[in-house]
Amino acid sequence: MLDIAIIGAGPAGLSAAINGVTRNKRVMVFGNKPTSSLIYKAEQVNNYLGMYGVTGKEMIEQYVDHAKSMGVPMHIGKVIQIFSLGDYYTLNVENEFFEARTVIIATGLPMVKMLPKEEEFIGKGISYCATCDGMLYKDKDVVVFGETHEAEKDVNYLSEICRNVHYVHQYKDVKHINHTVNSIHGKPKEIIAGDYVEGLKLKDQELKGNAVFLLRETTPVSKLISGLEMNGKTIQVNRHMETNISGIYAAGDCTGTPYQISKAVGEGLIAALSAVTYIDRQKAA
Amino acid sequence: MLDIAIIGAGPAGLSAAINGVTRNKRVMVFGNKPTSSLIYKAEQVNNYLGMYGVTGKEMIEQYVDHAKSMGVPMHIGKVIQIFSLGDYYTLNVENEFFEARTVIIATGLPMVKMLPKEEEFIGKGISYCATCDGMLYKDKDVVVFGETHEAEKDVNYLSEICRNVHYVHQYKDVKHINHTVNSIHGKPKEIIAGDYVEGLKLKDQELKGNAVFLLRETTPVSKLISGLEMNGKTIQVNRHMETNISGIYAAGDCTGTPYQISKAVGEGLIAALSAVTYIDRQKAA
Repeated sequence: MLDIAIIGAGPAGLSAAINGVTRNKRVMVFGNKPTSSLIYKAEQVNNYLGMYGVTGKEMIEQYVDHAKSMGVPMHIGKVIQIFSLGDYYTLNVENEFFEARTVIIATGLPMVKMLPKEEEFIGKGISYCATCDGMLYKDKDVVVFGETHEAEKDVNYLSEICRNVHYVHQYKDVKHINHTVNSIHGKPKEIIAGDYVEGLKLKDQELKGNAVFLLRETTPVSKLISGLEMNGKTIQVNRHMETNISGIYAAGDCTGTPYQISKAVGEGLIAALSAVTYIDRQKAA
Repeated sequence: MLDIAIIGAGPAGLSAAINGVTRNKRVMVFGNKPTSSLIYKAEQVNNYLGMYGVTGKEMIEQYVDHAKSMGVPMHIGKVIQIFSLGDYYTLNVENEFFEARTVIIATGLPMVKMLPKEEEFIGKGISYCATCDGMLYKDKDVVVFGETHEAEKDVNYLSEICRNVHYVHQYKDVKHINHTVNSIHGKPKEIIAGDYVEGLKLKDQELKGNAVFLLRETTPVSKLISGLEMNGKTIQVNRHMETNISGIYAAGDCTGTPYQISKAVGEGLIAALSAVTYIDRQKAA
């Protein structure tokens, strides 16, 4: 079991990781390739103390090299959901499962824009995880929205258990989709729903289904774990980077402004040390 | 007038400074020589993201170089007191005076150990500032405690206006003391007081005086400005690094644990941005 699972490989996540390792904890960082960071494209970053006149690319590379030098293991993959299991957590990372005593959420800027009616129908037909919820819709009709190729394996899984699968993809060249799937290039406009989800509205058509699976690159952070207290679009934390759920911490842009590297790095450190304290207390008990 | 006066030239202060400059504000850093930092003596620092395997000396030098590259002005000197003057502040820096719209306190670890009865007799004969309070004791007897040579000019000033000056110095080679001063090598044990201060007790003698001036290297941070809300020995701040006094911010070790560079750097950034918002709002009003 991991001591600390860190979601996000940006400045906050990597700072948490090196500090977890420093305190002799088993950590793992889950995230996208560091080259996908927005900082990576920055022409120059001058306000992170000690590194003057560096490009975003140089900065990210130094960060990643630092983490690698300290033996931080990184796992490229998207964390879909976190489940609480008493005194530890299980993370579903694209259907690989990892156990961890604590979790630090460092997913960066809250960039997901939800669809009309999406929020209110979560648990009533809106899902972010085919593996988790697919069986609920066995022999029924479902609509799946995918942002990247990554969604296709989930589409195929659903096509094996559901009656009809409509797959709405916003990217162009679909790769491996079962022939039974109704594949549509397009963008969702809003959820169709009465008491329960009834389908998905696109620009020029409506697709009927008992569930809508939204397989985006990023899961809305508030949906990662059930019951996480938010403050608008950002995660509510105190000065120890504790969320309202014990053992779950947050750091960096996902906790709110200022969206700055130094803040993220500082919060990553604090979150890691809070997690370390929590783990040591738990092990002693 | 300065936009932001920053007290402390450690990681928190320098991070605040480079971010103030980035936002086009007039800043000045007041502090000791950076070589006096505790970090300077660290053999290796590995947990500040992006700088792996550096010595404390290298780290501090890179920090100072960064600040210099961005044109941050530094003033070596001890801030004795901050006075509120309505919508701006005046800083007494060893009897040079500076005006500033906002102040960021980044004085580091709360290392001053107060004497028995010191806290309760502040304003009743305990003083940290000869220039500020000396005239109150004209033609009276005072005891002065000095930690370094820096105190000597204040001792001489007091010797010109007071009747008897006892000077207790914890360092050995006193340099320039007026011949009227009663000079004693020793360490204070406690304040002697009834309703008001009556003197200072040493290990083997008692010195009578109407006031005791404690001229330490560091002023207790809670005494820098009147009314500053503390949380034990650390300054009470919220997540914007705001203290209870508007226009006064704090960052780094003086706001509490963890005593770590990343936290200090992050808080310095946040304090600077909060000060910038405050200044811009004030200028717009």
